[in-house]
Amino acid sequence: MLNVTKPCRITGTGMHLPSSVSSEKIEAEHGLPAGWSLKHSGVRSRHWVSSDTVASLGGKAAQAALEDAGIDLIDIDVLITAGGTSDQHIPSQAALTLGQMRDGNKARCQAFHVDATCLSFISAFRLAADMLQDPEVKRILVVASEVASVGIGPSNWETLTLFGDGAGAVVLEESDDPQVGLVKHQHKLYTEGLRAAEIPGGCVAKWVEDYAFSPKLHHFQMDGRELLRLTLKHIPAFMKDFFASTQSKWSDVSWTVPHQASKTGLGVIPKIARVNPEKVVNILENTGNCISASIPMALHHLTKSEGVEKGDSVLFIGTSAGYAIGALLYQHG
Amino acid sequence: MLNVTKPCRITGTGMHLPSSVSSEKIEAEHGLPAGWSLKHSGVRSRHWVSSDTVASLGGKAAQAALEDAGIDLIDIDVLITAGGTSDQHIPSQAALTLGQMRDGNKARCQAFHVDATCLSFISAFRLAADMLQDPEVKRILVVASEVASVGIGPSNWETLTLFGDGAGAVVLEESDDPQVGLVKHQHKLYTEGLRAAEIPGGCVAKWVEDYAFSPKLHHFQMDGRELLRLTLKHIPAFMKDFFASTQSKWSDVSWTVPHQASKTGLGVIPKIARVNPEKVVNILENTGNCISASIPMALHHLTKSEGVEKGDSVLFIGTSAGYAIGALLYQHG
Repeated sequence: MLNVTKPCRITGTGMHLPSSVSSEKIEAEHGLPAGWSLKHSGVRSRHWVSSDTVASLGGKAAQAALEDAGIDLIDIDVLITAGGTSDQHIPSQAALTLGQMRDGNKARCQAFHVDATCLSFISAFRLAADMLQDPEVKRILVVASEVASVGIGPSNWETLTLFGDGAGAVVLEESDDPQVGLVKHQHKLYTEGLRAAEIPGGCVAKWVEDYAFSPKLHHFQMDGRELLRLTLKHIPAFMKDFFASTQSKWSDVSWTVPHQASKTGLGVIPKIARVNPEKVVNILENTGNCISASIPMALHHLTKSEGVEKGDSVLFIGTSAGYAIGALLYQHG
Repeated sequence: MLNVTKPCRITGTGMHLPSSVSSEKIEAEHGLPAGWSLKHSGVRSRHWVSSDTVASLGGKAAQAALEDAGIDLIDIDVLITAGGTSDQHIPSQAALTLGQMRDGNKARCQAFHVDATCLSFISAFRLAADMLQDPEVKRILVVASEVASVGIGPSNWETLTLFGDGAGAVVLEESDDPQVGLVKHQHKLYTEGLRAAEIPGGCVAKWVEDYAFSPKLHHFQMDGRELLRLTLKHIPAFMKDFFASTQSKWSDVSWTVPHQASKTGLGVIPKIARVNPEKVVNILENTGNCISASIPMALHHLTKSEGVEKGDSVLFIGTSAGYAIGALLYQHG
């Protein structure tokens, strides 16, 4: 068994997806060669919103997680929404998501939004584990919801076919079992990669009153090769540091639940980690990259398919715009 | 002395403001009666950016706080940026602010952004206090930076004259003195006020590709009367709850550092709290409402003018879009 530093327990997971959009449909509409999406992005279908919002997707995933945990919204002490996309500049996404939930008007929880782009869920999970050490905090709802589809354009085939919308949610509760909870979390930001993935316009730096819509400013710009270079450069030392203090190694981990960043990114993990690919959860083909929602969606998929057993360890790992790497090791019970 | 639940210590504060803009100038340019701003909004001058961004203001305030604490960026384990405004949708403000700081490229800290609009600093402070209970986390830099000026329009005289830009930062460190640190934090969200303060457009719900700039969508909409009604309705019970578990009362607090929400909002506090108005920090007249940056700016003003002594208690309190109320009591040492 691993040494748990912050006891807490995952008691429920949930997810919600809008309607699926096939790669065939995108390829036909935008003049891509048939089969390009699956071959290059590894995505057969993803889900894109028509009328849903970050709040409505997140609210549905959150409701599913509450039901899975057998509790109601009123039982929640803290709501953390996590993500790189949001519905409005003001108010915060946490308020908007709570406003979409059943009995949201009866909730009196603390609520705030955490943004570390693709690593938002991992950062929120770690904060939840910290907060659950406070005797006044018993149950936390973490909701990662993302609508990527509005900010992608047809000129970049990789982003067009790779990104999907979706939401995943987790209920975390206090635990009196010292062997259940967070083992280790680590997050490092390397500003050399600050411009490798960005949406330059739309906020204060290039405000909409001065900068009208243009694909270059408002569509997601991603240098996939540079992101891969940064990952290959930094992840070995990062993971060595990570496991050094846990007295374990990656191949001891029961399940790796990675950010569904890209086909190449996911393909690299079993090689770096020297783990059995069957122990690395991969849902990319049917959901695409859903930014920070990918990890809780993959966790939900794992718990409902293979199942996470008492004593299993789960490693959440990903990279984000910024550029950053994050990893969190959790032991279940 | 109060009972500290999470030992930690403020070791440095800093702030940064762009150029000041007088009320006379605004009144002359937009046809307001002379003296309207000071009379109705309580603001004589505020500061508006010309070329600065959320990141550049925040980076300068952060650097000042590091110098005040006598440490370097490399000593920081966690950077939390806090605020309702940000420079870009992607990457997160934490990455952008770190990218603007001296030696940002050498930092290897965890970095994420927290948004609870005007309560973002209080929420970030509480998270920092939680994280500082982890023996691996020794120093946290909290930076609240806001550029409100881009999202206000001339048609609403109240928002036009009330809001300013600015940044405040605090260094929080671990403490082995059990009488120094966070006494109590409480935050409640009341969704009945979800639409009382908002910017409806600009993000996923009304994306710029479909909704071009319009004052109604992209200028800050605020129903000041409704916000005051919600505050008067909810704050008495909220504060009664808050002080019930601290075995103290508001009038025992050494300093109240409120969000500089509005002239009326600040005027109400000494009456509700029954505290000496001289013990309530008020910088509204010369900075306006700087969203979440108001509180750390007011704290910095207090530490550099009156000074916060060993054993002093400081109450941070505010309201936010959402609608939410937040309060945090800290005992200094």
